[in-house]
Amino acid sequence: MAMRYFEDLEVGTVERFGAYPVTREEVIDFASRYDPQPFHLSDEAAAQTYFGRLSASGWHTGAMMMAMLVSHMKEGEPLASLGSPGLDRLEWLKPVYPGDTLSIESKLIDKRRSKNRPEMGITKSETMVLNQHGEAVMRIISNGLVRVRNPEADA
Amino acid sequence: MAMRYFEDLEVGTVERFGAYPVTREEVIDFASRYDPQPFHLSDEAAAQTYFGRLSASGWHTGAMMMAMLVSHMKEGEPLASLGSPGLDRLEWLKPVYPGDTLSIESKLIDKRRSKNRPEMGITKSETMVLNQHGEAVMRIISNGLVRVRNPEADA
Repeated sequence: MAMRYFEDLEVGTVERFGAYPVTREEVIDFASRYDPQPFHLSDEAAAQTYFGRLSASGWHTGAMMMAMLVSHMKEGEPLASLGSPGLDRLEWLKPVYPGDTLSIESKLIDKRRSKNRPEMGITKSETMVLNQHGEAVMRIISNGLVRVRNPEADA
Repeated sequence: MAMRYFEDLEVGTVERFGAYPVTREEVIDFASRYDPQPFHLSDEAAAQTYFGRLSASGWHTGAMMMAMLVSHMKEGEPLASLGSPGLDRLEWLKPVYPGDTLSIESKLIDKRRSKNRPEMGITKSETMVLNQHGEAVMRIISNGLVRVRNPEADA
């Protein structure tokens, strides 16, 4: 299958994809394991807080975002990804509630060749997680490592 | 029960806690749901990549970190936390493997009163996730919102 390499990526490209239904069962299951704070476990406890009602852990929102990103990576021509060294920024902007459907809007904001590793390039993306009202619930600026098709060309 | 408020926090304080055993079953379970890339699903696929063998999703490492943070928050005097608006930075530094035991070292690096919300303060922490060899596998710079005990005192 054809692959997309570093050279194929164009700064400014915007992609929209994903439709992740947030269920009450999954919100409570994730929070019970990884983030058992009251407002992620029950409506009653959440009613007394900023969240107002049961809301997803921010790390759960990150995990749901990743599920959509990986699913999208597997569609069409796969990206020759070498993983991510991390994020420049992560913002939890609004609560995520059971019944929400999340989607992604991701923009490639920068790319550059690695100085030390001619076989790889470094990308920078701004990725928004949106709810069904089009509101951004989470925003990240992430860095990615992508294989270069022709390392000798202009290293 | 006594609570710790914004006024009680001292910049420079370092806390070490947690002992999270990373199991093969949990690594595969998390990745199957949220990050089904080959190197998070099997040793065979991971052997051909940077990871070398089955390794945890970075979002799983974040979730395990959160589990340790919440568990620690519930020990001793709880912090009057109002949640987190996000992270200034997140770095995935080394792979996390089944069999690893993770722990936390967290340092309060800054705190300031909110300009608009006299009832809350904003903290900045550097949190390292370490493996059993003392190697940092993940590092975040996070912001937290903490209730102020006496909002009128010096707003």
